[in-house]
Amino acid sequence: MQKLKRNERIGAMIKILSDRPNHIFTLTYFSDMFVAAKSTISEDIDIAKSIMESHKLGLIETVTGAAGGVKYITDRGPEAQEKFVNELCMKLSDPERILPGGYLYMLDVLSQPESAAKIGEVLASWFYKSHPDFVITVQTTGIPVALMAARALNVPLLIARRDVRISDGSLVTINYITGSAKRIQTMSLAKRAVSAGTRALIIDDFMKGGGTAKGMMDMMREFSITVVGVGVVIATREPARKLVSDFKALAVLNNVDETARKIDIKPSKWL
Amino acid sequence: MQKLKRNERIGAMIKILSDRPNHIFTLTYFSDMFVAAKSTISEDIDIAKSIMESHKLGLIETVTGAAGGVKYITDRGPEAQEKFVNELCMKLSDPERILPGGYLYMLDVLSQPESAAKIGEVLASWFYKSHPDFVITVQTTGIPVALMAARALNVPLLIARRDVRISDGSLVTINYITGSAKRIQTMSLAKRAVSAGTRALIIDDFMKGGGTAKGMMDMMREFSITVVGVGVVIATREPARKLVSDFKALAVLNNVDETARKIDIKPSKWL
Repeated sequence: MQKLKRNERIGAMIKILSDRPNHIFTLTYFSDMFVAAKSTISEDIDIAKSIMESHKLGLIETVTGAAGGVKYITDRGPEAQEKFVNELCMKLSDPERILPGGYLYMLDVLSQPESAAKIGEVLASWFYKSHPDFVITVQTTGIPVALMAARALNVPLLIARRDVRISDGSLVTINYITGSAKRIQTMSLAKRAVSAGTRALIIDDFMKGGGTAKGMMDMMREFSITVVGVGVVIATREPARKLVSDFKALAVLNNVDETARKIDIKPSKWL
Repeated sequence: MQKLKRNERIGAMIKILSDRPNHIFTLTYFSDMFVAAKSTISEDIDIAKSIMESHKLGLIETVTGAAGGVKYITDRGPEAQEKFVNELCMKLSDPERILPGGYLYMLDVLSQPESAAKIGEVLASWFYKSHPDFVITVQTTGIPVALMAARALNVPLLIARRDVRISDGSLVTINYITGSAKRIQTMSLAKRAVSAGTRALIIDDFMKGGGTAKGMMDMMREFSITVVGVGVVIATREPARKLVSDFKALAVLNNVDETARKIDIKPSKWL
């Protein structure tokens, strides 16, 4: 392979790093790929780092030590996050989104790839330091944002199901009570998907009473798994006392007024 | 803003383009961002293009005309696709994946973000030219790959549900018959999610008889939507005659032999 110019190395490096967030690439990996000295690669990394920072495109971090190298973190910083969540709240405040019964239509925002990716990145940014081994969500509407959070964290996504399918193999099933409507629900997870002693991050799209999140926490306990955090896209203000005490949300839904056709949704204090 | 060096412009450009596949960015967008002449940006694009091609990281394409500009296409070329699908088949051939009843455990591969992204990219590469307006899948296991395909195509993802939730608003529900087991199933889609005259790409994880895909096709007909293609991750060899005649699959599952503990799965002819 012929020798590459600096801009070629940096361009390829940024693409490779951002294709796999939170994965450590060794300097040897890049020095072999680009047929360049490690000192040259180090200089390239410094330039790539400052490009990403100055354009708020995420962070490039060097990791020292035996398992060291360089990795890309999707965190675009508090300003960009706040701007994005503000826009999201504006979008979700559209009165056209009010459904009969005072529900809020948000399926489109949750499963549009670009917004799902950005939501997932914010959620992930809160839990990097907790080092989860996987993200878990319960079907269906939370799957896209949970997948994007898992992508940003470079961990697998596990999906607990409300229905049971034979192609999942052996399951552990638990019953739980929804926090708001006090109905009994069932949730199952493939036994082979998890192993004891690992660390879970719970992600969901919506939290009202917190019953579903609590159901996932109980399920994790069945598997002897530590829950390192609970992140949701939107939490309702009421009930203030949820079944899960420790969680973070992007936005808080204060009220949906069907008669006045007004939705009151605001970025959360965690931003 | 101070003037940037070429390697800074190229690095940032590659990141911005690849954060949003298949979206056309105008030259003005980049010339404003980097405070550089359009001729300079054009040269940057040419360099970025050759970097991506030589490292098989996808394609950068210039689009001419009034709505012209530059965009990133996730297609890494036939060689990289074949290599990836070969590895996928190897992974799925592990006899540990055999479930009672001759089912194949593949949930982990389908919902691991990196493999879901690569699968989605291959599926998307087959249907770029058909210009779908959205991707549709039916819950649950196909959602991650469908989301990643939608991301690669820069279109929304729609999720048809097997259960019905009040927070979806008005629904269109159809009954369909599964092609393999001949059971009656129900599938619903939020009415407000789609509009007549648009173009759908159907994505699913698994096709046996083709009943689910046909159900989605029938549902699209209810909404006066054109189906531009059907893409699945794995199709079974038997039955050879599926309810859907025109589809593409990444891999073909020839046989799962529970007694001999052997899985025969091969990359498909469409690769």
